[in-house]
Amino acid sequence: MEKEFVTLSQGSGGSEMQELISRFAFSKAAQNAGWKNCDSDSATLDIGDGRSIVFTTDSFIVDPIFFPGGDIGHIAMCGTINDLSVMGARPLGISLGIVIEEGFSISELDRIISSIDKVSKSTGIPVVTGDTKVMQKGKLDKILINTSGVGIIDNDILLARKISVGDKIIISGGLGEHAVALLSKRFDYTTDILSDSKPVIEEMDAIRDKVKIAKDPTRGGIASILNELCEKHGVGMLLYEEKIPAKQEVRKVVEMLGINLYELACEGRIICIVSPKDAQSVEEILKKFNKDASIIGEITEGSKVIIETFLGKRILSMPAGTIVPRIC
Amino acid sequence: MEKEFVTLSQGSGGSEMQELISRFAFSKAAQNAGWKNCDSDSATLDIGDGRSIVFTTDSFIVDPIFFPGGDIGHIAMCGTINDLSVMGARPLGISLGIVIEEGFSISELDRIISSIDKVSKSTGIPVVTGDTKVMQKGKLDKILINTSGVGIIDNDILLARKISVGDKIIISGGLGEHAVALLSKRFDYTTDILSDSKPVIEEMDAIRDKVKIAKDPTRGGIASILNELCEKHGVGMLLYEEKIPAKQEVRKVVEMLGINLYELACEGRIICIVSPKDAQSVEEILKKFNKDASIIGEITEGSKVIIETFLGKRILSMPAGTIVPRIC
Repeated sequence: MEKEFVTLSQGSGGSEMQELISRFAFSKAAQNAGWKNCDSDSATLDIGDGRSIVFTTDSFIVDPIFFPGGDIGHIAMCGTINDLSVMGARPLGISLGIVIEEGFSISELDRIISSIDKVSKSTGIPVVTGDTKVMQKGKLDKILINTSGVGIIDNDILLARKISVGDKIIISGGLGEHAVALLSKRFDYTTDILSDSKPVIEEMDAIRDKVKIAKDPTRGGIASILNELCEKHGVGMLLYEEKIPAKQEVRKVVEMLGINLYELACEGRIICIVSPKDAQSVEEILKKFNKDASIIGEITEGSKVIIETFLGKRILSMPAGTIVPRIC
Repeated sequence: MEKEFVTLSQGSGGSEMQELISRFAFSKAAQNAGWKNCDSDSATLDIGDGRSIVFTTDSFIVDPIFFPGGDIGHIAMCGTINDLSVMGARPLGISLGIVIEEGFSISELDRIISSIDKVSKSTGIPVVTGDTKVMQKGKLDKILINTSGVGIIDNDILLARKISVGDKIIISGGLGEHAVALLSKRFDYTTDILSDSKPVIEEMDAIRDKVKIAKDPTRGGIASILNELCEKHGVGMLLYEEKIPAKQEVRKVVEMLGINLYELACEGRIICIVSPKDAQSVEEILKKFNKDASIIGEITEGSKVIIETFLGKRILSMPAGTIVPRIC
């Protein structure tokens, strides 16, 4: 039976969200107009001369807006830069749509703007167009940011390649750090963990030639992204649980809160699919950026994501229900 | 003295908003990266081969979300399509960032999506990438939409030309229709006026060769856009009041509510600057789309926008204060 009202779980990056956005039957018109990869981190359009435009968007409703290791401005810049980067593209420009609640503190706004500016300076990727709106007090919880991004890429660099059984799955660092840092403010516990929010441009530059597909495991975490890849490419996956990196303190907090590590949004991680011959080398390169980078699994026959644990095998399902609201 | 909190008037498209966004000192980085027209409806970047990317963003917080002649989805598509169109560009793709309040009606969401789809079908411009978030009940007033848009344009078509004293100012239809339609729902009066919300692609296609600069007079209305043009180009303007088109019913409502017709957002109008030799012809072409299209003034020496009325001349200032909140 038809749900009549939008639920929180429909915004969580899991199966209910997929059901919700399946109502937006826009992809056929996009395909007819020549756009590809509309279900990827960024959509692409061949503009001739062997080049494609790369285009993406993301809205950020993170709560709290300031957290250890970042803030809503930082995450809004990194998220969109990363959605372009994982396609293999060099981002050219970012748009910034800010909606602010009347009465929001100007000094907090200045901190957010300064944070956006810092990411822009450190990456060399400018904010080129923007829009600012204000809503009456009580009509919006503090501030909301949309960033969209555009880039251009040579078609032969575009990371949208065919994956095969035996390919390796590599993650560029530990899971759960963004969630734990953010939830520490919400639940008022003390932690040394900082959000992993960061641009992944340098990592992508270093591994781009050796990677078939790269993904930005944000909402729904690796559980969501890996299940999506399996469905799209008609493959299965085997993950080695003891190889999946997460800091001890992250594991403790995740256990304490009873949430699933694999479903938590990362904001500065790449998960990539690499042919077996390149896997070792990609892992080594990524370890230079973050020592927790690791080969965590491989592509198999089948259609499910299976985790191999000390106690046997279990299925890692597409997330369902409300994972953790307003984490990104 | 520094304002400490964000005010509604800072979101109204007038002088306070300019002061607020002047805090976002992003334009220098954008210029250094080669972007131009960052203060226009769309930013542009030369990508070689005589072509430029055109890129824009807009967030829509319109209240009520359904109004005579349109809804938030319709206006979100038209607004961004028009921001690209007035640069002379053919829009290639639109991004759709939707943030929904938990508990929002699915049937209303379907109406909004269907409205977006209709604009997409009628213009042939697809939604190519999107993001959907849900906020807890009470944290957002119903729904908020961000659309960004990307296009490509031949550099010699790009409408960012020099304007000169004697050039004519032409508006493509009557003012105030969007505001009056929308406010009729908010203040519960009866009107036959429909929002002017529409894509201006066909009009732009028809006049593009004859136009120096075209603008989309949304937030702050023609008062805002004409003052901006004067400041940017170091010119003045003379408007002929009796030539400025507005339906009789619009004038009545505007007078009743005590708001300034010239400060009201249009969502389907073009205001353009045309050399004197082309003015008559552009006016005639635009009249085929809307009989109220009219030459309403000319570029002069000086720095102010002056309106010539039956009673003498007066200055049309940059809007200040809260114009009408959440009209776009």
